[in-house]
Amino acid sequence: MNYRIITSILGRILTIEAGLLLLPLVVSVLYGEAVMPFVWTIGLCLAGGGALLALGHKHTGTLHPREGFASVSLSWVVISLFGALPFVFSGAIPNYIDALFEIISGFTTTGASVLPAVEAVPKGVLFWRSFSHLVGGMGVLVFMMAILPTDDEHSMHLLRAEVPGPVKGKLVPKMRDTARTLYVIYLVMTLAEMVLLMAGGLNWFDAATTAFGTAGTGGFGVRNASIGAYDSVYVDVVVGVFMMLFGVNFNLYYIVLVKRSLRGLKSQELGLYLLVIAGATVTIALNVVHLYGSFLQALRYSFFQVSSIITTTGFATADFNLWPSYSRALLVLLMLLGACAGSTGGGTKVARLVIVGKAIWAEIRKLLFPRSVSRVTLDGERLEADAIRNTMVYYILYTFFALGAFLLLSSEGYDLETTFTSVISCLSNIGPGLSLVGPTGNFSIWSGPAKLILSLCMLLGRLEIFPVLTLFASGVWRRKA
Amino acid sequence: MNYRIITSILGRILTIEAGLLLLPLVVSVLYGEAVMPFVWTIGLCLAGGGALLALGHKHTGTLHPREGFASVSLSWVVISLFGALPFVFSGAIPNYIDALFEIISGFTTTGASVLPAVEAVPKGVLFWRSFSHLVGGMGVLVFMMAILPTDDEHSMHLLRAEVPGPVKGKLVPKMRDTARTLYVIYLVMTLAEMVLLMAGGLNWFDAATTAFGTAGTGGFGVRNASIGAYDSVYVDVVVGVFMMLFGVNFNLYYIVLVKRSLRGLKSQELGLYLLVIAGATVTIALNVVHLYGSFLQALRYSFFQVSSIITTTGFATADFNLWPSYSRALLVLLMLLGACAGSTGGGTKVARLVIVGKAIWAEIRKLLFPRSVSRVTLDGERLEADAIRNTMVYYILYTFFALGAFLLLSSEGYDLETTFTSVISCLSNIGPGLSLVGPTGNFSIWSGPAKLILSLCMLLGRLEIFPVLTLFASGVWRRKA
Repeated sequence: MNYRIITSILGRILTIEAGLLLLPLVVSVLYGEAVMPFVWTIGLCLAGGGALLALGHKHTGTLHPREGFASVSLSWVVISLFGALPFVFSGAIPNYIDALFEIISGFTTTGASVLPAVEAVPKGVLFWRSFSHLVGGMGVLVFMMAILPTDDEHSMHLLRAEVPGPVKGKLVPKMRDTARTLYVIYLVMTLAEMVLLMAGGLNWFDAATTAFGTAGTGGFGVRNASIGAYDSVYVDVVVGVFMMLFGVNFNLYYIVLVKRSLRGLKSQELGLYLLVIAGATVTIALNVVHLYGSFLQALRYSFFQVSSIITTTGFATADFNLWPSYSRALLVLLMLLGACAGSTGGGTKVARLVIVGKAIWAEIRKLLFPRSVSRVTLDGERLEADAIRNTMVYYILYTFFALGAFLLLSSEGYDLETTFTSVISCLSNIGPGLSLVGPTGNFSIWSGPAKLILSLCMLLGRLEIFPVLTLFASGVWRRKA
Repeated sequence: MNYRIITSILGRILTIEAGLLLLPLVVSVLYGEAVMPFVWTIGLCLAGGGALLALGHKHTGTLHPREGFASVSLSWVVISLFGALPFVFSGAIPNYIDALFEIISGFTTTGASVLPAVEAVPKGVLFWRSFSHLVGGMGVLVFMMAILPTDDEHSMHLLRAEVPGPVKGKLVPKMRDTARTLYVIYLVMTLAEMVLLMAGGLNWFDAATTAFGTAGTGGFGVRNASIGAYDSVYVDVVVGVFMMLFGVNFNLYYIVLVKRSLRGLKSQELGLYLLVIAGATVTIALNVVHLYGSFLQALRYSFFQVSSIITTTGFATADFNLWPSYSRALLVLLMLLGACAGSTGGGTKVARLVIVGKAIWAEIRKLLFPRSVSRVTLDGERLEADAIRNTMVYYILYTFFALGAFLLLSSEGYDLETTFTSVISCLSNIGPGLSLVGPTGNFSIWSGPAKLILSLCMLLGRLEIFPVLTLFASGVWRRKA
């Protein structure tokens, strides 16, 4: 293990975080709030970052996969450890474990909160909280690549570890240019949503934070009643549609916008994603129509909640915890499924479902006709046995972690629906769950150790398990492998 | 597809069922109950079996995997369609769908019941109900192989489809002798339990039906309060230990008893199985000690329930639905896990967990050290990529069917805990679940269509999904493939 290269990357990340903290500082100034929580945090980031950069000075050698995985996992831990400080310093969340939970929830774009009411929290702190979604959505290391000079071989291993989804081959050449282009698309879309929300009557603060929460598919709101507080069909539609757009694989936007080819729209993953949204929206609307008077009203609430949950955003305009069993069961399945690979959304990803579905079919044909040859393809390209196996291992690991965390948390004695959906909500980076952690509840019910387990689930979910897991593999921390 | 060979196998199965029905007929005579329900059913089995045998007369050609899978799946459907009749004819369960659910629950050794109280049901019918566990536990086709002349190549495909577990290679040579030996071990163990139970004060009827329920890891009881009705530490220990023994891979007994080698005891699966039982028993006992006064009493109830659930039997001596969250959560995980491969128990099997755990570890090492070679071994023997992939596909299919059935059943509006554990209980062939289908509840709450879905889950679970699934694969039903 090449320690210097990792220390150097962590140092850079902390310096970048100091820079990012200038924005909430400015917001605090604008609203006449205390600025010292941010000043202190920026100082500590710079001190810590400087120390790490000095330690990692003049690093040599190449970045192997193991260093890539370790750098990514540790970067997310380090930015969270420092990013939690403004909550503590401002007094908004005095307990450090709670603050850590909140910021990990922010960076991982989960949106699960320990705050029972957000409207009393200073604007600067709320801005930092929502801004962490924007930063975490596209990935902090992708951001570093976009703005700092790094060579492409290094970048590849970092990008592979940070960008969600099973298939990552297409973006490999000219990694840095691609990272920049993706960030530009991402920020332009965020700005577009913000402008549309301001056109709908939201002030700039609410519009910006809501757009950040949508872009990162995070879900932290600045109102106690989430998006429901605006009580506007227009806002519901804008946010609902943008959530759906941010749940699409960004490669598709890249292909359509940069390569000017409509080939991206023929994606099998996109097709299934849209089909699931349509199917879920209509059947849930039918299931809840008696609660909303008309089918159109039911459609409005159904679409928003479906879009919010499948993209793993977690905004709410209705308390879906009060919906009938079918609607709640389907929302749980959408939590497990999640959005498209290569989007800012979480979950197990629609692409994995497509791949696994085809692999299962190939397996059955092999059992029936042992001499036949079955190929598994995605969008016309053949998938290698390695990619299929990795996808299946991912599914099983997701299940194992979900069940393991479920068992650990069950010792706190809450009902099994609360316990299970708390875990799923964190592992799929959603935000709300059902029962006590439903849209009107929050995660403050859990003890400190439970919050740490859930924080680990959020990191596992955001980084898609493997990078985090490699930290615990034997042999990784040896100097020579 | 060779239809004649399938028709011929189905005909033989029905003839055998007619023979098996003579036993409950005798019980009815002994207790002075109405015999006509059994006489009618035997007549119909013989008529149906005769017709099928005539249709399949002089079949030629070989049994391909696809005919093997189809024969096994259809055999289980056919014996259930006829086996349900005594419930209807006797009036014990007047509704045919309910009766079908009950007998599928019996043959698949699930033990989920639609009967709110069993003590009012005629003894002959109760005997048939429990006897179906004994028949289904080891497999009806294995039984056919043991008693009727069939050639070994045919037998292999049938055995592969009917015996649970991922690794089936070892028993292949001399299939028929092996099937007989396994049946002898099975019946001797059943008899031993029956004798021990009679020594503990149970009458022959209760002892026999309880032994059948244990042997098949089924769980139908003949008392309303299940095994708790006997209120005896001795009975609890005998049944608890025998459940555990019937959850062990029968290959191990074969190796130890027939080959007189202790090699069988070194099985990694057996080690993990015993470790899980010990860990679950102790931690649940600690979790429920406040309910039972002393740790020893808590251990008594904990061990019985753990042994009952991990082996997927489903007998109960305590209403574990009233236990704290940790105990209930752990029991749900044991429901998913199940017993050892090659036992009469259900679930996803401990062997699969061992294989998948090792495959995951190999996958992580491959990510970290791409040039390293990782081999996955079980008990010192190398597992081929095909076996590993098949195991992973099984896990994923189990999950997909569980979630799919969960969604379908959720439309009936019961709470999600009832809905989810109903599905898991049927898919893992357990019997009770939690909430409304807990040890004191029953499955009569579900509608007819829901009961059919749950029946399909029981068949999928007992036959380990693939054979049933192949019935729906395109190309299977063509005459020439």
